[in-house]
Amino acid sequence: MLLHIDSSADATADSVSRRLTARFAGAWRERHGAARYRHRDLATAPVPPLTPAYTALGRRVEREGFVPPAKVPALIDGPAEQREWDLTLPLVDELRCARTVLLGVPMYNFSVPASLKAWIDRVTFPGAFTDPDTGESLLRGTRVVAVMARGGGYGPGTPREAFDFQTPYLRAYFGNLGVAPDHLHLVAAELTRVDVLPRLAGLEHLAAASLAAAEERMTELARPAA
Amino acid sequence: MLLHIDSSADATADSVSRRLTARFAGAWRERHGAARYRHRDLATAPVPPLTPAYTALGRRVEREGFVPPAKVPALIDGPAEQREWDLTLPLVDELRCARTVLLGVPMYNFSVPASLKAWIDRVTFPGAFTDPDTGESLLRGTRVVAVMARGGGYGPGTPREAFDFQTPYLRAYFGNLGVAPDHLHLVAAELTRVDVLPRLAGLEHLAAASLAAAEERMTELARPAA
Repeated sequence: MLLHIDSSADATADSVSRRLTARFAGAWRERHGAARYRHRDLATAPVPPLTPAYTALGRRVEREGFVPPAKVPALIDGPAEQREWDLTLPLVDELRCARTVLLGVPMYNFSVPASLKAWIDRVTFPGAFTDPDTGESLLRGTRVVAVMARGGGYGPGTPREAFDFQTPYLRAYFGNLGVAPDHLHLVAAELTRVDVLPRLAGLEHLAAASLAAAEERMTELARPAA
Repeated sequence: MLLHIDSSADATADSVSRRLTARFAGAWRERHGAARYRHRDLATAPVPPLTPAYTALGRRVEREGFVPPAKVPALIDGPAEQREWDLTLPLVDELRCARTVLLGVPMYNFSVPASLKAWIDRVTFPGAFTDPDTGESLLRGTRVVAVMARGGGYGPGTPREAFDFQTPYLRAYFGNLGVAPDHLHLVAAELTRVDVLPRLAGLEHLAAASLAAAEERMTELARPAA
């Protein structure tokens, strides 16, 4: 299954991250068909914010050690917790089932958008991605392809490199979840707002080269059987 | 004005970040009274997610250079953009008026909660915190006190230090906004989930010491006139 998640607030064709994920998804569907394709748009259908019932249930589950999702219902206390679990389980199931996760991630204020963080905060439920028998991650074989679109330049060696809280964050988050380092592909398109920000004037050629490289990389990554 | 922002999804007294911000806010109100105190609870009243109209308006404003909030209405195109601006301006005004910003920030998945990122993504509107005449930040004199509560240990020198995307992120974000480095106070309470996570057993004394130090620091920071 391909789980395609977009998080740009801009739902139009202006969104670079959406154009790049669409390129990958199109190539994938041509090969595999649409049956096992799932698109989640975090802008048009935001993940609901966490409530106290979520944290209460999470804490209770965490105390038990590695509780698989199937055994969570037995620990639910009351309708508020049930509602939280009903909002969470479909996200968990989707991520567990995905062979490839495709993420469109614009940089907002140096980091991932709040819409994506809302998905991360909800889906990362204690025990949800751990094999209860072995304690190993269930996501060792999952491939994650994330497109990061940034208005400015944050690449290695640039003056703003230390302001990049996308690349190292996604690496840390998915790494901790158990995604193998060689299954995590982070593709950056830089200087995407070269046409908007006067201070980027003159960097149009760099922006174009970065976008072309990202497009090529997405096509390449869509090629192997996912 | 003191702008007190809480972002923990846990609205109960179990929330360490809320207990610590309450300590500061209590001391502040004792000294200054309640008239110029504003509490924003991002869990009970979440900041609405951005829509395409927000990004469209933001881009239009950005093209104009440094447009102060008072001149944004002239650039608004249609009711959807008006609605976005109506949701955004009160947050901008609050931050511009605050002499001290007090933030309660639990660590969720190594970073700030989605609820706080939603506030950051909305309030950070182009030109909103820049003096249009000088190009300087309006927040040079603003004091930011952020309490960071973390379930585990992420302090300097610990094995998980590289997983701390709270401290460096808040420093980068507020620094870029123009908050002076010596006006930014980041206070961490570590190992707050020592009673929940079996793997932290035996570290109770470190957790207690970290909490006590954070409490003391908050009392200390509440002391000077804000």
